[in-house]
Amino acid sequence: MLRKGRAQHQGAAAAARGVEPADLLVTNVRLVNVLTYEVIPGHIATRQGLIAGVFHTDDAALPSQEVLNGAQRFAIPGLVDGHLHIESSMIGAPAFAAGVVPRGVLTIVADPHEIANVLGLSGIRLMADAAKDLPLDVFLQAPSCVPATDLETSGAEIGPQEIRKLLGWDEIVALGEVMDFNAVLTQKGRAAEVLAEAVKRGAIIEGHAPNLTGGDLAAYIAAGVTSDHTFVTPELAEERLRAGMTLQLQLKTLAPETIRRASALAKSLNLCLVTDDVMPDDLVRTGHLDHVLRTAIRMGMDPIEAIRAVTIAPAMRFGLTDRGAIAPGRWAHIVLTKSLEDFRADYVFHAGRLVAKDGELVVPLPKYEPPEEARSTVRIPPPATDRFRLPARGRSVTARIIQMRRESTYTEARTERLPVKDGAIDWESSNLCLAAVFERHGRAGTVGYGLVRGALRDGAVAMTWAHDSHNLLVLGRSPADMAQAARWVVETGGGMAAVRGGELLGSVRLPIAGIVSERSVPEVAEELGTFRRALTTLGFTHTSPIMALGVLTLPVSPELKLTDLGLVDVTRGVIVPLIMEG
Amino acid sequence: MLRKGRAQHQGAAAAARGVEPADLLVTNVRLVNVLTYEVIPGHIATRQGLIAGVFHTDDAALPSQEVLNGAQRFAIPGLVDGHLHIESSMIGAPAFAAGVVPRGVLTIVADPHEIANVLGLSGIRLMADAAKDLPLDVFLQAPSCVPATDLETSGAEIGPQEIRKLLGWDEIVALGEVMDFNAVLTQKGRAAEVLAEAVKRGAIIEGHAPNLTGGDLAAYIAAGVTSDHTFVTPELAEERLRAGMTLQLQLKTLAPETIRRASALAKSLNLCLVTDDVMPDDLVRTGHLDHVLRTAIRMGMDPIEAIRAVTIAPAMRFGLTDRGAIAPGRWAHIVLTKSLEDFRADYVFHAGRLVAKDGELVVPLPKYEPPEEARSTVRIPPPATDRFRLPARGRSVTARIIQMRRESTYTEARTERLPVKDGAIDWESSNLCLAAVFERHGRAGTVGYGLVRGALRDGAVAMTWAHDSHNLLVLGRSPADMAQAARWVVETGGGMAAVRGGELLGSVRLPIAGIVSERSVPEVAEELGTFRRALTTLGFTHTSPIMALGVLTLPVSPELKLTDLGLVDVTRGVIVPLIMEG
Repeated sequence: MLRKGRAQHQGAAAAARGVEPADLLVTNVRLVNVLTYEVIPGHIATRQGLIAGVFHTDDAALPSQEVLNGAQRFAIPGLVDGHLHIESSMIGAPAFAAGVVPRGVLTIVADPHEIANVLGLSGIRLMADAAKDLPLDVFLQAPSCVPATDLETSGAEIGPQEIRKLLGWDEIVALGEVMDFNAVLTQKGRAAEVLAEAVKRGAIIEGHAPNLTGGDLAAYIAAGVTSDHTFVTPELAEERLRAGMTLQLQLKTLAPETIRRASALAKSLNLCLVTDDVMPDDLVRTGHLDHVLRTAIRMGMDPIEAIRAVTIAPAMRFGLTDRGAIAPGRWAHIVLTKSLEDFRADYVFHAGRLVAKDGELVVPLPKYEPPEEARSTVRIPPPATDRFRLPARGRSVTARIIQMRRESTYTEARTERLPVKDGAIDWESSNLCLAAVFERHGRAGTVGYGLVRGALRDGAVAMTWAHDSHNLLVLGRSPADMAQAARWVVETGGGMAAVRGGELLGSVRLPIAGIVSERSVPEVAEELGTFRRALTTLGFTHTSPIMALGVLTLPVSPELKLTDLGLVDVTRGVIVPLIMEG
Repeated sequence: MLRKGRAQHQGAAAAARGVEPADLLVTNVRLVNVLTYEVIPGHIATRQGLIAGVFHTDDAALPSQEVLNGAQRFAIPGLVDGHLHIESSMIGAPAFAAGVVPRGVLTIVADPHEIANVLGLSGIRLMADAAKDLPLDVFLQAPSCVPATDLETSGAEIGPQEIRKLLGWDEIVALGEVMDFNAVLTQKGRAAEVLAEAVKRGAIIEGHAPNLTGGDLAAYIAAGVTSDHTFVTPELAEERLRAGMTLQLQLKTLAPETIRRASALAKSLNLCLVTDDVMPDDLVRTGHLDHVLRTAIRMGMDPIEAIRAVTIAPAMRFGLTDRGAIAPGRWAHIVLTKSLEDFRADYVFHAGRLVAKDGELVVPLPKYEPPEEARSTVRIPPPATDRFRLPARGRSVTARIIQMRRESTYTEARTERLPVKDGAIDWESSNLCLAAVFERHGRAGTVGYGLVRGALRDGAVAMTWAHDSHNLLVLGRSPADMAQAARWVVETGGGMAAVRGGELLGSVRLPIAGIVSERSVPEVAEELGTFRRALTTLGFTHTSPIMALGVLTLPVSPELKLTDLGLVDVTRGVIVPLIMEG
């Protein structure tokens, strides 16, 4: 993390007065002043990593070591992403920086709750350490819901004591999204205790309030939670802004009417644009926060309002008064672009240093070597073929079925009558997939089984990137393929594999905590491409196939899901048996 | 200071959902939402001191212990004053609360630099202790310039070490106004060291940048200072907002054009209204921040913009996210008024409790007993008559004269040829006043002498309320009267006295640190009235007579001033002799 000290402020002050030369003078820009809603021609002087001054007349131009002609480009502050999970892109912080810095993103506030579910506090420490000395300022949130519920076995739990520790870290600027909103409303359970600790310490508390409205929304906010980044309708957007929440719009939420109505109400910096989860191949193909910014503007958001929503607004949300605007004394995080309507980062300056140009990084990034502990998190032997069997008595049984949907990651709960053969359910003849979730953190040795309709038609997949506890999910039509896919993932130390007839069709290696690669974004994107194509080959068609599989294990995502403890009736929040009585 | 905990958030959340009754329901108000620029009819529920929820439909109304019909009044958040000095009103925090709470002011951020000049850290502790359990939330700033310069002897010095301590106090939310802007620009002197310490600790740093512009202003901000409350023209106001400063407009700065242009640029909550210094009799007669608010609106400021400038904007400036808007989870600091254009606080609720109605406090205030140490700060014997004599040799001398002005607290430096009689300057025959400043903190025993034209025609005054070091200023036409006025002030433990021909014409008792009364605002205002009238009787006419005398001793106020170390040439920042050579 960057640190400002007296020397820097002294240097910037001396350069502002012309007493000492500036380090860099960026001349002839159209400066986007996000504080005053103005675009004014001028020159920007930087010194010791800070903005020394902004000058609007030529005769005020200062002596400088270096001069760059902005050539009438727009100068905007470095982008700030106020809500995301680095692990969603399946990469570590350095690779993430390489992916987003050339797009103008220079500050992120990340919630490391995925890696925390595997490694606990040491996973969060790893994220902080991996982010050191990057041309990307990484702030973290203390994950509030690890694990998401008590209906699964994660690698670690984070309770009030851990939260107290985390909130004392320099890198931590908030409590991460309080997903367990039921715990907040009823004030029962671990999330309520965690929230109480954060409230006591006066922390900024991030929310996750899908569809909450009226008294429930007021209660959620009154309890101390003050932002929301989940999908909202225009009405829900207005309600959140009126109630003093910071509204964080992500790609799936963007719609012209939502933008229009939210913009009309958000004169107080309470409107932000965020990314949340970006798949590595999407990052390569469409971009990151820059893509959200372009999309919002294309949908009618005023460009300056939109730029505020990715700069000063998220900076203010987290009390980061040292950035978010091009003004004296703030970090010289500057992006030059030819167009506001079609934003592209031509030049990217981090703390006054040119770090990317025309979409390419121009500085080397430090290497980060994760600790050995982070590489050995799949702590089970590969499950043998005979583990993919559902013993049953009699001639047939009524079983609960997870019905997948094509355009949603939510599932439906169904029941079917299935034949029993040789003392086990004959799921193979019924065109169903068997799913098994193996606790893989070396804690419980538990395994949960389910039956899934609407997934693969053939072969098998295995993955340790399985929200939120990231146990080993194995899903398939053939016990032999399932065992082989699982073996590949276990032996790789984590990842995703698709197998058919003994052949590995596609795979992603994620050896860090079983969810993160050590490679670059384009490399991971390419691996992920093989896996995506394999899924198609295996007959799985879905608008978001990776995520649909990855949240099959998420017990806060409706309607019937599977953890290592068994099938979860999400609506009721309980474990239910696979085979129904009677 | 108020403290929120889990129980309060739980209670508010339960009331929002209707699970438990609210404590208070204020129905039928026109709610001024300072976050969204809207006025919407609705009802406000409070519980455990917090806003539980705001409901805009009647069927959402909640069960409540108590109901108050708002009768279509406007509901606005409790006023927040982001820059003031309590000591300027010559009273302690409880009396101050009694004066401002009925006017709707419920939060203040005070810089206690006056008392700090007398008592150092224990004076600041006294201010914090005196403010406990009031229906007014008092936050403090760590005074940055104690004393203002090295050209005087104050009762205490505050350096970087003290600042480090102060910034760790719960009550301290910022570094107080960095008045010594020359020290900031040159990075030399105590103020530069103090600033460096505050920068290192990431503190919010308050400014005082009279007339700074261009590179100097950029340098001042680049050095870490991010607000200004001094007088500004419309151009200077725009420059400050563009450079990311929080602009704090006080009464003397308010002008239609300044308001119009500042409002047009300040969509980012960087525009505040503040009071700075309010004399006790002005407070009684015209009001406090409510008066500034009314004046701004009368001069054309949009009422909602103006209300933002006294609520959410100053709250955000100091990171006080728990107030500034009527929204769930925030303190239930609510003011009801019949009119926005002519704001009057009909009902004032502090943390959900009715504390004032129709301009009258309706709750008792706690007593505060200052420590004995604070009552014995005039640590010199009364100066005898023979101290008011200026020894000189020869038959005449050329002396420096302080020429007072009628409409400004600035003075002019003049010289005059004066006769010498019996080994002393014969100032009495020249219609001049003799001025003497006695160090009174028991530290140096120093005394500085000056000659003043344009002050009293008769008699004498003495005062320990003399910025910023608050030494004993004695000024007059007659040594006997001067000695008598000084004796009264010394024996009273501090205050102001006006004497003529042996008779005490008017006086103000300020026994706490020699600058603060223990009485109520109306009582102090009445005492001050006797002193004001006495000044008129003694022939001193000035638009701001008390302040003009009170800053005769302030070595950062142009042009020639007097401290216990002698005459100060303010422009050059040096001590100069009374009698000129040659």
